[in-house]
Amino acid sequence: MELIFNSQIDKIIELALTEDIGSGDITTLSTIPAGTSAHGRFIAKQDTVICGIDIAKKVFCIIDPKTVFTSHFSDGDKVTCGDVIAEVSGDARAMLTAERTALNIMQRLSGVATRTAQCVDMVSGTKAKIADTRKTTPGMRALEKYAVRVGGGTNHRFNLADGVLIKDNHIAAAGSITAAVQNSRRMIPHTLKIEVEVETFEQLNEAIDAGADIIMLDNMSNEDMAKCVEITAGRALLEASGNMDQRDLRKVAETGVDIISIGALTHTIKAADISLKFSLNK
Amino acid sequence: MELIFNSQIDKIIELALTEDIGSGDITTLSTIPAGTSAHGRFIAKQDTVICGIDIAKKVFCIIDPKTVFTSHFSDGDKVTCGDVIAEVSGDARAMLTAERTALNIMQRLSGVATRTAQCVDMVSGTKAKIADTRKTTPGMRALEKYAVRVGGGTNHRFNLADGVLIKDNHIAAAGSITAAVQNSRRMIPHTLKIEVEVETFEQLNEAIDAGADIIMLDNMSNEDMAKCVEITAGRALLEASGNMDQRDLRKVAETGVDIISIGALTHTIKAADISLKFSLNK
Amino acid sequence: MELIFNSQIDKIIELALTEDIGSGDITTLSTIPAGTSAHGRFIAKQDTVICGIDIAKKVFCIIDPKTVFTSHFSDGDKVTCGDVIAEVSGDARAMLTAERTALNIMQRLSGVATRTAQCVDMVSGTKAKIADTRKTTPGMRALEKYAVRVGGGTNHRFNLADGVLIKDNHIAAAGSITAAVQNSRRMIPHTLKIEVEVETFEQLNEAIDAGADIIMLDNMSNEDMAKCVEITAGRALLEASGNMDQRDLRKVAETGVDIISIGALTHTIKAADISLKFSLNK
Amino acid sequence: MELIFNSQIDKIIELALTEDIGSGDITTLSTIPAGTSAHGRFIAKQDTVICGIDIAKKVFCIIDPKTVFTSHFSDGDKVTCGDVIAEVSGDARAMLTAERTALNIMQRLSGVATRTAQCVDMVSGTKAKIADTRKTTPGMRALEKYAVRVGGGTNHRFNLADGVLIKDNHIAAAGSITAAVQNSRRMIPHTLKIEVEVETFEQLNEAIDAGADIIMLDNMSNEDMAKCVEITAGRALLEASGNMDQRDLRKVAETGVDIISIGALTHTIKAADISLKFSLNK
Amino acid sequence: MELIFNSQIDKIIELALTEDIGSGDITTLSTIPAGTSAHGRFIAKQDTVICGIDIAKKVFCIIDPKTVFTSHFSDGDKVTCGDVIAEVSGDARAMLTAERTALNIMQRLSGVATRTAQCVDMVSGTKAKIADTRKTTPGMRALEKYAVRVGGGTNHRFNLADGVLIKDNHIAAAGSITAAVQNSRRMIPHTLKIEVEVETFEQLNEAIDAGADIIMLDNMSNEDMAKCVEITAGRALLEASGNMDQRDLRKVAETGVDIISIGALTHTIKAADISLKFSLNK
Amino acid sequence: MELIFNSQIDKIIELALTEDIGSGDITTLSTIPAGTSAHGRFIAKQDTVICGIDIAKKVFCIIDPKTVFTSHFSDGDKVTCGDVIAEVSGDARAMLTAERTALNIMQRLSGVATRTAQCVDMVSGTKAKIADTRKTTPGMRALEKYAVRVGGGTNHRFNLADGVLIKDNHIAAAGSITAAVQNSRRMIPHTLKIEVEVETFEQLNEAIDAGADIIMLDNMSNEDMAKCVEITAGRALLEASGNMDQRDLRKVAETGVDIISIGALTHTIKAADISLKFSLNK
Repeated sequence: MELIFNSQIDKIIELALTEDIGSGDITTLSTIPAGTSAHGRFIAKQDTVICGIDIAKKVFCIIDPKTVFTSHFSDGDKVTCGDVIAEVSGDARAMLTAERTALNIMQRLSGVATRTAQCVDMVSGTKAKIADTRKTTPGMRALEKYAVRVGGGTNHRFNLADGVLIKDNHIAAAGSITAAVQNSRRMIPHTLKIEVEVETFEQLNEAIDAGADIIMLDNMSNEDMAKCVEITAGRALLEASGNMDQRDLRKVAETGVDIISIGALTHTIKAADISLKFSLNK
Repeated sequence: MELIFNSQIDKIIELALTEDIGSGDITTLSTIPAGTSAHGRFIAKQDTVICGIDIAKKVFCIIDPKTVFTSHFSDGDKVTCGDVIAEVSGDARAMLTAERTALNIMQRLSGVATRTAQCVDMVSGTKAKIADTRKTTPGMRALEKYAVRVGGGTNHRFNLADGVLIKDNHIAAAGSITAAVQNSRRMIPHTLKIEVEVETFEQLNEAIDAGADIIMLDNMSNEDMAKCVEITAGRALLEASGNMDQRDLRKVAETGVDIISIGALTHTIKAADISLKFSLNK
Repeated sequence: MELIFNSQIDKIIELALTEDIGSGDITTLSTIPAGTSAHGRFIAKQDTVICGIDIAKKVFCIIDPKTVFTSHFSDGDKVTCGDVIAEVSGDARAMLTAERTALNIMQRLSGVATRTAQCVDMVSGTKAKIADTRKTTPGMRALEKYAVRVGGGTNHRFNLADGVLIKDNHIAAAGSITAAVQNSRRMIPHTLKIEVEVETFEQLNEAIDAGADIIMLDNMSNEDMAKCVEITAGRALLEASGNMDQRDLRKVAETGVDIISIGALTHTIKAADISLKFSLNK
Repeated sequence: MELIFNSQIDKIIELALTEDIGSGDITTLSTIPAGTSAHGRFIAKQDTVICGIDIAKKVFCIIDPKTVFTSHFSDGDKVTCGDVIAEVSGDARAMLTAERTALNIMQRLSGVATRTAQCVDMVSGTKAKIADTRKTTPGMRALEKYAVRVGGGTNHRFNLADGVLIKDNHIAAAGSITAAVQNSRRMIPHTLKIEVEVETFEQLNEAIDAGADIIMLDNMSNEDMAKCVEITAGRALLEASGNMDQRDLRKVAETGVDIISIGALTHTIKAADISLKFSLNK
Repeated sequence: MELIFNSQIDKIIELALTEDIGSGDITTLSTIPAGTSAHGRFIAKQDTVICGIDIAKKVFCIIDPKTVFTSHFSDGDKVTCGDVIAEVSGDARAMLTAERTALNIMQRLSGVATRTAQCVDMVSGTKAKIADTRKTTPGMRALEKYAVRVGGGTNHRFNLADGVLIKDNHIAAAGSITAAVQNSRRMIPHTLKIEVEVETFEQLNEAIDAGADIIMLDNMSNEDMAKCVEITAGRALLEASGNMDQRDLRKVAETGVDIISIGALTHTIKAADISLKFSLNK
Repeated sequence: MELIFNSQIDKIIELALTEDIGSGDITTLSTIPAGTSAHGRFIAKQDTVICGIDIAKKVFCIIDPKTVFTSHFSDGDKVTCGDVIAEVSGDARAMLTAERTALNIMQRLSGVATRTAQCVDMVSGTKAKIADTRKTTPGMRALEKYAVRVGGGTNHRFNLADGVLIKDNHIAAAGSITAAVQNSRRMIPHTLKIEVEVETFEQLNEAIDAGADIIMLDNMSNEDMAKCVEITAGRALLEASGNMDQRDLRKVAETGVDIISIGALTHTIKAADISLKFSLNK
């Protein structure tokens, strides 16, 4: 797992545990004797690309550092309905208290990874990459973008500071695509690329001439996108965008675009069906 | 709007703004001159129950307290494709920086409210209420449960401390449903109710005799639930549960249960399609 | 100890350590050589119900995870003047730095537990339970309510969200007790009970008819409370309230009420006398 | 009010509001219509030195910045049973939500100020000052020390970094009082004083010779303290300490000591009886 | 001023105020009567490029929102010794409490901006830009990088996530420059550029062939850098790096490199001499 | 190392790591295979008083608790160019991610310690101590003051609450030095000293008579300071202040003053040159 340090992730986990546990799991505390141990198994209830195993482990260990968590798969593996994804052993009270938060995270991330993998499969064999957007769940961006990578996708900008994306309002304010690109080039770090959103061939040509590194083709037909690929001739990366979840991704990819960005990867989330079954040792 | 104070909501908004803005919106700062003003309109791109208007307003005002935000609808209103939900005026840089975070929140909450309202409609005329679960997005629980209320649903427990829900593991540890209920009754605040999950008529009878206030009927057929209603005869609230999003909710409601709880209200989220169109004043 | 996870408690401990230590314990750092080890004993200087042992342990381990902390009693035990409650060994500098914060917490919680236990003893043999209120010390609610449980009491609401308590202003705004109860019933989670505060028999009858689960008898004479018990006949829980610390609790309990709630359990706090004596190993 | 900025106070207020309100005041939200306004009066139910008026105001304004808060007294004023301390007007929902937190703080601080003022009165006419200790409530130190000042007392150290207090363990580790004082003098900021705790006349003499600025007389009889005053002859400040709440403070003061420090000012807290009565404008 | 929102900056200001004020400015509170007003003037004691005016204003307004702050210059202006940079009016206690924190920030940022402007002047007329590095002061990165921009410089990466910089260890692990670049290209967002650090012409050629967007010339002589410019022929941006503060920047620039990055802009900081003189209105 | 607990330090480390790492070190993650281990050596590139070793260790262990960090020197040791200060072994990805933050802290603190040690050397043999001021870097006060101690200096006030320093504005507001000292003496904790800033012999005499514990001689010539020493005759500590970094410190010390406080110790910071060289184990 690649997530060596990320303070945003620690914060969202703490927020999730705090909002779920409140002043304590009174059901568990009043029915399960102190000292009871238990064993739990995470079981896939559907085929899914699994994601979030190490985060789930972290959740259990925050509640009780002595919990033993054993993974049988790694993030990115495709599990089949019935597979035992991981096992967890330790104090029954602690594990029942952590259960819902761990599942809520793992199920959502696996849902995102699975959806991404389906899109990646649709364009396999083409050069097009599947990318996410900034349409992520508040607080969950780092995790959801991780899930997109786990599913085989690539990440678009993480935030408004690590990439330039010039849209209609920016162009209007600057006066022209050319002016907008020049202004950005002068002020931004030289390590960043400039992307321009275009809707017409004229805009495409102006953006290329202005030196845009990436050009977003907004809501174009496949025919128009194919023509854009031809016009551009490798002078910039081309990104297809705009309700791409409602398009035939393979046909979009076959136009020759470099990237297909899909807001629905994260703005529409279907939790994967994963259960956690405990047995108590009495 | 009822959300007078909620420190969890402030935290998730701050987290969302921080993760989206990073060290600054370099596109906007490099292309839009300081002092440019703008006017924006939130437009519904589909019929939806709107939710999150006041949160969106809060997001804009955190970025720039001088932003003027005018609502044309209130949370819970049903808007039609094309309706102007709200308008926002102020500093162009500030508003473009806030845009994505405001939309990400409003779109998701409206999605939850809309889905809830659909479920509520399906059972209208019966006494059944539609309830959510703890299967919420990490960090978003307060907001998502608010959206469920806005959509006409009712909230189940907010966290593990404000209600008792005795499930199989608790019963196993306590020895019996009766023992579990008694243990809980003795230790929990007298202000809280006790709910027990049952799978058989025998368990139902034991739970009623033990004094359970609510009984969750887990994955039962409609016939069995109807029989449970008959057996219970008003001595406890009955809650239908278990993949209810895959059932005919009206038929479930017609069994006479009091509550139908649906995890999918929040574990599967489809952002409502709302756009924000700006025009710049130059 | 039942406190498996509680982020509020972590925050209050961190706040307490930060406010006590500031930029460092300059007395200890300038007089005690680095590497000095020591051994300390927590000694009861009065008879008390002990509470907060595991929190004290946590404080020492935050300052130095290598500290060895050995308890001779558990929370809830009655210790006698002179008893050694716990022992602590480790780095002298670390332990002297942690001492005051650990004692401040343990002494207060033991004070609350002891006071609660005295009240519980007064009503022993009756069915009345001793309950706390929301009149707790800012930041200390989770800990003080834990101390009440440790002393044998039961907890009233933890916060404004996990129970309904309809008082005079709510009734005035809703129009009547009946309207207030109905409005609440419709909007709150079905897992929560509704409590109504009454001052007369008429109000009592209206509250019962409206379906109140709990009725608070506010500042009534014992005779009136006994009559309320008779009227209610088990249809609701009855809670005696209002300066109960100035009443003969046994006589209140003998009226047959179910709960006696006492603000003074936490709004008036007398720290238990516990000392910590160190010997240095030189 | 002197509290211009204090981030610790903001944190404890936020913690208090968070723990009291949770996900929302469901009673108020379900019974009081949005838009209802109200007027409240803080009434003294006993004679007390009032403290915390501006903090209470802050609490109301955090919940709703539009609340109008009018004080009729200032912190430190002695109010009489029946006095209207302050009035508050605004949104009924907001004020009922803030009520308990505001009262919890003001009642405790007034309790501390009142107790302090009683001690100060007992020694009036002598040169002795009444001082607090570090035996404060976790999280409340800044506020409780403020209340001691409001009551006419003086503050001892705020934390372990802003003063040196050499006790038995420090002396043992350093080898002698002389060595401990010299070590501290060499290492601490020159802006800080050094205090030494002594139990005998020999220790007193050694401390004075070592250059201690303040000498704490620990648990001495009044006769011995008077002799210490004579021996010291103004070469250091003398502080009487050790269960001073159980002594006749006037007699202690008449020994000629400069300071009498009393842990009970803050380790034993009795909330002042202050009520807040609302009337709703319908 | 461009800093519309940045939660990191709010945190460092709060940290700075907290560490400077502690439990209160006791000198001011004990000598300056409540209600005293004052007027202050920020005066340049040396020629400097001013930076941090709006941050200083923010500091004063956090302590007292009623403070009136009037700027006579904007960030980036060159002020001369004796110039009045800004004026501040309001409550004397509040302003004296805020003074040191405001000055500490403004003096440091002006120092960074001034140093940067000197470097920019040295290379004026060439195409070389002056850039910073990640060698910033802990907690101050956003502010110091802002000061570099104010001084006319450009920013290098803000953090490890918004740019790729492949150095010797990365090359060693990947096996070759080519492999490292390819691995990065495959995994990073398509919006980011790839920079490679080289020490020889061979490495330069390999990096260009591998498609590096930027090439860092590490510690090369001016002659070698000029040759690198020739070899590269515009196929990549060239960045001169390595103790550049000890080089003749003009000569470096005249080699034709695009960027000169200088760690000393932020790893060596000399506060600009700015004073704040108050006059009290009595 | 003396820093047993300091929540400010933890916060600045977290802030530094967060601002440097962002959403992840994408260069390292994309080029260095998971599981690669490495060994690094901190090497002094100049003679320096080393400071911050344990903080650097803490940074590495936050990123990966399994990192092995071995010190060959302790804070305060003088290392020579070429010395290996410490070694670090562990996961290559983790260590490369932590590297910059650890170096940024250690280099700055060593710079402060080295500068302080130079000043201390200049006055060796005299009784004068070298002290810092409150002109520290925002967020870094605790660490920078620690570095001053490590360099052999002494600390002035940590914040506005742990010492009194009466300056011109305070004197003006109080009416006279005498009034200001008396007002402070009455209100501040008896554990704190009072310092007064003076510019003339008249002020010096008034301050001594008023009972000032410390007197700051502001921008005086060496001759005047020598005369002040004579006048004072040990009745107060004397502190030389005002652009002392531009004076011959030895001559200042030879006037007989007790303390020389130098803002430049922390307002002008030159990072020590320390490198960290890794070798990968493949």
